[in-house]
Amino acid sequence: MNLLLLNGPNLNLLGVREPEVYGSTTLADVEEMAVAEAQLLGATLTCRQSNHEGVLVDWIQEARQGTDAIILNAGAYTHTSVAIHDALKAYDGPVVELHVSNPHRRETFRHRSFIAPAADALIAGFGVAGYKAAVRAAVELCQ
Amino acid sequence: MNLLLLNGPNLNLLGVREPEVYGSTTLADVEEMAVAEAQLLGATLTCRQSNHEGVLVDWIQEARQGTDAIILNAGAYTHTSVAIHDALKAYDGPVVELHVSNPHRRETFRHRSFIAPAADALIAGFGVAGYKAAVRAAVELCQ
Amino acid sequence: MNLLLLNGPNLNLLGVREPEVYGSTTLADVEEMAVAEAQLLGATLTCRQSNHEGVLVDWIQEARQGTDAIILNAGAYTHTSVAIHDALKAYDGPVVELHVSNPHRRETFRHRSFIAPAADALIAGFGVAGYKAAVRAAVELCQ
Amino acid sequence: MNLLLLNGPNLNLLGVREPEVYGSTTLADVEEMAVAEAQLLGATLTCRQSNHEGVLVDWIQEARQGTDAIILNAGAYTHTSVAIHDALKAYDGPVVELHVSNPHRRETFRHRSFIAPAADALIAGFGVAGYKAAVRAAVELCQ
Amino acid sequence: MNLLLLNGPNLNLLGVREPEVYGSTTLADVEEMAVAEAQLLGATLTCRQSNHEGVLVDWIQEARQGTDAIILNAGAYTHTSVAIHDALKAYDGPVVELHVSNPHRRETFRHRSFIAPAADALIAGFGVAGYKAAVRAAVELCQ
Amino acid sequence: MNLLLLNGPNLNLLGVREPEVYGSTTLADVEEMAVAEAQLLGATLTCRQSNHEGVLVDWIQEARQGTDAIILNAGAYTHTSVAIHDALKAYDGPVVELHVSNPHRRETFRHRSFIAPAADALIAGFGVAGYKAAVRAAVELCQ
Amino acid sequence: MNLLLLNGPNLNLLGVREPEVYGSTTLADVEEMAVAEAQLLGATLTCRQSNHEGVLVDWIQEARQGTDAIILNAGAYTHTSVAIHDALKAYDGPVVELHVSNPHRRETFRHRSFIAPAADALIAGFGVAGYKAAVRAAVELCQ
Amino acid sequence: MNLLLLNGPNLNLLGVREPEVYGSTTLADVEEMAVAEAQLLGATLTCRQSNHEGVLVDWIQEARQGTDAIILNAGAYTHTSVAIHDALKAYDGPVVELHVSNPHRRETFRHRSFIAPAADALIAGFGVAGYKAAVRAAVELCQ
Amino acid sequence: MNLLLLNGPNLNLLGVREPEVYGSTTLADVEEMAVAEAQLLGATLTCRQSNHEGVLVDWIQEARQGTDAIILNAGAYTHTSVAIHDALKAYDGPVVELHVSNPHRRETFRHRSFIAPAADALIAGFGVAGYKAAVRAAVELCQ
Amino acid sequence: MNLLLLNGPNLNLLGVREPEVYGSTTLADVEEMAVAEAQLLGATLTCRQSNHEGVLVDWIQEARQGTDAIILNAGAYTHTSVAIHDALKAYDGPVVELHVSNPHRRETFRHRSFIAPAADALIAGFGVAGYKAAVRAAVELCQ
Amino acid sequence: MNLLLLNGPNLNLLGVREPEVYGSTTLADVEEMAVAEAQLLGATLTCRQSNHEGVLVDWIQEARQGTDAIILNAGAYTHTSVAIHDALKAYDGPVVELHVSNPHRRETFRHRSFIAPAADALIAGFGVAGYKAAVRAAVELCQ
Amino acid sequence: MNLLLLNGPNLNLLGVREPEVYGSTTLADVEEMAVAEAQLLGATLTCRQSNHEGVLVDWIQEARQGTDAIILNAGAYTHTSVAIHDALKAYDGPVVELHVSNPHRRETFRHRSFIAPAADALIAGFGVAGYKAAVRAAVELCQ
Repeated sequence: MNLLLLNGPNLNLLGVREPEVYGSTTLADVEEMAVAEAQLLGATLTCRQSNHEGVLVDWIQEARQGTDAIILNAGAYTHTSVAIHDALKAYDGPVVELHVSNPHRRETFRHRSFIAPAADALIAGFGVAGYKAAVRAAVELCQ
Repeated sequence: MNLLLLNGPNLNLLGVREPEVYGSTTLADVEEMAVAEAQLLGATLTCRQSNHEGVLVDWIQEARQGTDAIILNAGAYTHTSVAIHDALKAYDGPVVELHVSNPHRRETFRHRSFIAPAADALIAGFGVAGYKAAVRAAVELCQ
Repeated sequence: MNLLLLNGPNLNLLGVREPEVYGSTTLADVEEMAVAEAQLLGATLTCRQSNHEGVLVDWIQEARQGTDAIILNAGAYTHTSVAIHDALKAYDGPVVELHVSNPHRRETFRHRSFIAPAADALIAGFGVAGYKAAVRAAVELCQ
Repeated sequence: MNLLLLNGPNLNLLGVREPEVYGSTTLADVEEMAVAEAQLLGATLTCRQSNHEGVLVDWIQEARQGTDAIILNAGAYTHTSVAIHDALKAYDGPVVELHVSNPHRRETFRHRSFIAPAADALIAGFGVAGYKAAVRAAVELCQ
Repeated sequence: MNLLLLNGPNLNLLGVREPEVYGSTTLADVEEMAVAEAQLLGATLTCRQSNHEGVLVDWIQEARQGTDAIILNAGAYTHTSVAIHDALKAYDGPVVELHVSNPHRRETFRHRSFIAPAADALIAGFGVAGYKAAVRAAVELCQ
Repeated sequence: MNLLLLNGPNLNLLGVREPEVYGSTTLADVEEMAVAEAQLLGATLTCRQSNHEGVLVDWIQEARQGTDAIILNAGAYTHTSVAIHDALKAYDGPVVELHVSNPHRRETFRHRSFIAPAADALIAGFGVAGYKAAVRAAVELCQ
Repeated sequence: MNLLLLNGPNLNLLGVREPEVYGSTTLADVEEMAVAEAQLLGATLTCRQSNHEGVLVDWIQEARQGTDAIILNAGAYTHTSVAIHDALKAYDGPVVELHVSNPHRRETFRHRSFIAPAADALIAGFGVAGYKAAVRAAVELCQ
Repeated sequence: MNLLLLNGPNLNLLGVREPEVYGSTTLADVEEMAVAEAQLLGATLTCRQSNHEGVLVDWIQEARQGTDAIILNAGAYTHTSVAIHDALKAYDGPVVELHVSNPHRRETFRHRSFIAPAADALIAGFGVAGYKAAVRAAVELCQ
Repeated sequence: MNLLLLNGPNLNLLGVREPEVYGSTTLADVEEMAVAEAQLLGATLTCRQSNHEGVLVDWIQEARQGTDAIILNAGAYTHTSVAIHDALKAYDGPVVELHVSNPHRRETFRHRSFIAPAADALIAGFGVAGYKAAVRAAVELCQ
Repeated sequence: MNLLLLNGPNLNLLGVREPEVYGSTTLADVEEMAVAEAQLLGATLTCRQSNHEGVLVDWIQEARQGTDAIILNAGAYTHTSVAIHDALKAYDGPVVELHVSNPHRRETFRHRSFIAPAADALIAGFGVAGYKAAVRAAVELCQ
Repeated sequence: MNLLLLNGPNLNLLGVREPEVYGSTTLADVEEMAVAEAQLLGATLTCRQSNHEGVLVDWIQEARQGTDAIILNAGAYTHTSVAIHDALKAYDGPVVELHVSNPHRRETFRHRSFIAPAADALIAGFGVAGYKAAVRAAVELCQ
Repeated sequence: MNLLLLNGPNLNLLGVREPEVYGSTTLADVEEMAVAEAQLLGATLTCRQSNHEGVLVDWIQEARQGTDAIILNAGAYTHTSVAIHDALKAYDGPVVELHVSNPHRRETFRHRSFIAPAADALIAGFGVAGYKAAVRAAVELCQ
């Protein structure tokens, strides 16, 4: 089982940016933890991060071949990207939308999600622990 | 560790009502599965369901004594109840908001949540498997 | 043929509250008239009233067994209750939404109905005579 | 007792257009059925249909002389015509607004009614059977 | 100097419909009064009324030849007709928008005017006396 | 003179919940203080609290017999309950709407009040001292 | 018959400011013309202008004694002043709202009028000639 | 192959009205050009124009017999007519919505189209050349 | 203890303007009553009224020295004045917002308050008796 | 004559993604067909596709030199990209906006177009055949 | 070169009111600093402050004679005054809008500016240092 | 002191695109001028431009090391980019938002800024001279 973990803009600053909102674990830590969790469950997890909307679209399109599920923390593009929405719609496997914090407790413009209507499931507000939960959930959705 | 699982209106019909949206596992099945998962993790889970907004408020208030975390699938009251919002605000432990389906893929009036700004975390769209994930998540949030 | 007539909050005051809007026939009179009309058409009508949203939800759920059609004057809950909407969605028989007055001639917050999208048909503005019309209509919808 | 049944735009296609929404009884069938129902109740029913907003206004104005009640299925003009609203306001007898389907279960632009605030009563969602109910209701409103 | 006075839907009921809003002078009286006022000022006034949006469009188009100014009380079409708006835009002479009552003191849907942005001037709230004022104003605008 | 003091959802937690917003006096303290104030003014005050919308509706209906004025802190139901609005409309005596804090300084969804258009007067933002002021005010409104 | 002509903010610049919108006749010219028209009709016209909202309120209040009608071009305060609205409501005689240009052909924020619901009649878009028409209209409204 | 070209209100003024927006070719020229284009492609094109909403509805209904495709420039009715929307819905063949200019570059009220959701395809902004393109497109859609 | 009572635009007409809304006690009566109430409670009350927004801002600024609390009935400026809001924000003592009637039972534009978010407490709908209640409340807030 | 055909995000999946909406012809097929059509008309067509908003902006800027017209199917960026809007505004030649399906028949967020106000003309809903029509149209607009 | 610096309501409290938002430099300090900066650049700066909207309008009108540029910190009137907007429109020289803080980081009602569409340029968020920058900018705009 | 000047999409066309809005100085000229101004003030200015949202995010992230302040003209991304907003939030030094023209005098969709709430200060409407002012302001904010 091959899983893909995509992190969007500014998530490369995880553990650095606004630690009072996102905690202090870095993206490298998080990816390592998620990869380990996947291995534990007999799956392979590939991790990628980009600040570029178009790159995220490219990667989601590539996942159409040989990737069983996508876990996506689209960051700021959650609230503005119809292009990512469309790319997810063209992907057949399950999609898990992930957020470190609970967007509904932040600014109003973070309440709208273009990802949600194209995602199967949603995990939010568990801090970086949500990544492990998302891996487990993606594995279950593939079964 | 004592956990409380609250299910709101019409969730007693789980497995019966609109199975194409919610699946066919019954609430009794779900609660049994969730209790087992809690035991596995060394926690105790109490399960309650009510169609009455006021009863849910009463139960959340009672949970202020001796309950370490609340898992809440508020059903329709998610979208209309400021009273439950206020009760949750008066509860000190972690709160996990849970939905069987992804509300953002349904009618517009299900896109607004009064629970979200009073919850720590959110799990949605995993079907009844979300209950197990929510138990695990609640245990982690208590640690 | 078993029919259920549900009246929501404050309809127990029918004939007493704001008679210039609702007329002066009491709820007991109305229910008697409706039962008689049902008998005339060879049907049995059960009548219930509650000021509690949760109780109305309970009764609609119970109607899933052995009730052929529901006539519902949800009163104020028409405009606020997603829970009743969901309960009706889980009921398989025909649902007739009923209002004594025409809500579109009253305050703006009475123009929105959560019942309408879950009801098959609507009768409004005929005063208490609407109850008889609703019984006839429910019988026809069952045939 | 003289009643007038007015059908608005595209209702001449009743039984032909979108039968899954409106059923397959034609307008001629419906009018015949309604006339019969009126006769049964000792009333006379005149039936007219037009696709022209202005013609409907003309007919409502003419009804000011010698017509005891109007039954109006304004079709699409329900949602756009202030002119018909004004003509109804200038008519003294009771007005019954009628819809074959329940507009609140269709597109958003069908949720607004300019007829409702100028009508005494409303019947919707009973299919063509609503025409018979409307005749009975109009007769009762005239008594 | 040739002037055209156009009255829209339901204004043929002037003096009859809702006299508490519009007064009791009939349209014939008003037209006579307006014609007299025009004569006094050396102008010729032609008067027309229709309940049909399309007919009003036709007449405004015809006025492109040989009519020096239009006085238009579009009645209900004021609030809904882009077609009349467009016809007025294609007319080169001055246009005076006229209302017997002050629309801003009535229902909200009468506050929007599609005529206003296509009219040069506006007279409202003077009762039927506004017709005389409109004739005088139109004559002045032509000079 | 018989007065009724109704407190809505979560007000049983007064003095416990969010003390930085509501202060630390308990509901029992408040009720005692209010009863004393009423006695001082020669009136009798009955105090009730419920988390259930329907129960509040029931109590307001019962107050139609033998209660001279109602003081209502509807808590969260202030912002969502049309049912309580309707019950108050059916009550003939004066109604004083009461809030411990000033809702306009809190979240947007607390700015809308369904109680206000059904209440005669409003006291807000005086903390628990508002209860004494409300009692005095209710007595004056009854005179 | 005593009439009062009030001009609001920036109308002292009439004939100077944006002449392509308002023409080049000065306020002094306009007032002279209006006074002459009033004399012709046997009335006395007093003219005042202020850029201060409060001063306009003061003058409208003073007009409660001995002024038979007010003609008001409130300029920018048309769109923002509830205080002038309230002062006009407290004035018993007829009020004519006046605008040199047609506000509906200008910016959106000029489409809302707080004066309109407190005025009896409205004249707009006739340029400075509107002042003469307003005087004539005010005289007629007083008769 | 029989095609129908319908032009709505004010399009009889094509080439005359606001030539800076619509160009100077007349409707007769356009229709001749369109007929010729149809002949070239082996189809027959019938051309009709009306300022009356109801007439356009009538013609669309008639097209249900023997017309293979409709090309519709509904003019102002594009933005206001639910009746034409409904008539098009009842027509089985392809519908091409046509505009001479690009409505999204004009006033806001021209941005909403009731025709679009009932049309298969849309051509806008090509000036009168759009008519030829629409004919070719309609022929292709019929193949 | 020094208190300041400020009355805004048109409140100098109290007892004269719309007595069915505001009662017939004059502002002088009200101020006398309020001064007496303050004396009874050992406080000094200064009373001022102005129709000018700027004057009210000036007085609130002056109150920064030597005034312990402000009671403000801002009248129409309640709904439009950000300047008074800012002045109140710069004042350190308690502020009591006061209205003779209940603004939520009047026009929609009176539902928005710029004073509320800058006030500590609110009293509305008690008629002129509200002034006494406000004095008592201000005294309590100062203690 | 040099034409540029730009396809935006996910259009590289044409013929693969959601074939029930977009058909099964691939982008390569479409581009080949469009190039052939251009050749037939004596023009040269260059084809480019990118999922990156910035790349599309770059290409539109480059087109300022030596490209006579742009045909743009901006896909999802149609609804979100002010940057592409601005780039098109800086391009002097004609711009044809193109959509395979009719966006007005899809989700609400596809009804807003930032491209439309910067485009000369629009073709939508013709499936992949729209590409040929767009080429012909672009050639005509260049002449 | 003569410049005018106008400060609106509550800016006389600069350095006193909410120092955490506006800093602790007083208006006198700021004006002195700004006058010095102007002298350095060979210009003369006149400084005025008022809490009265009408006074600001008067001063802007007077500036039409002999003032080369206006620097305006309209304070609260920024968000409510159409009258100041109109006065600025009647002024021919450049206008610099100035804010000490960045209004977009404060309450929603401070996001709307009536000054912006009448100003040439905008400086915000630099604290009192913005005054110096505004003087330099105004001098440059005059050159 | 190291400053970074970032220019967003289409600003590479400065001096070329719509010169009536932006003037005719090129980006190279502007950058040269800004660099010179920085040198004069003892600072070093690095200049970068990109049409790619992701690239701008990358550069802002890189600026977290060794850059003392950012001057950002985000062009079109001002109105759509939450990603840039988030990147700025993760940057500790001062941020100056810059616009050549005043966005509030252009289309409505340019009135919303996602940059403003993440920026310390704002300069707009000074044409290319704003770049010099922004450099001076950034230097001051760093001191």
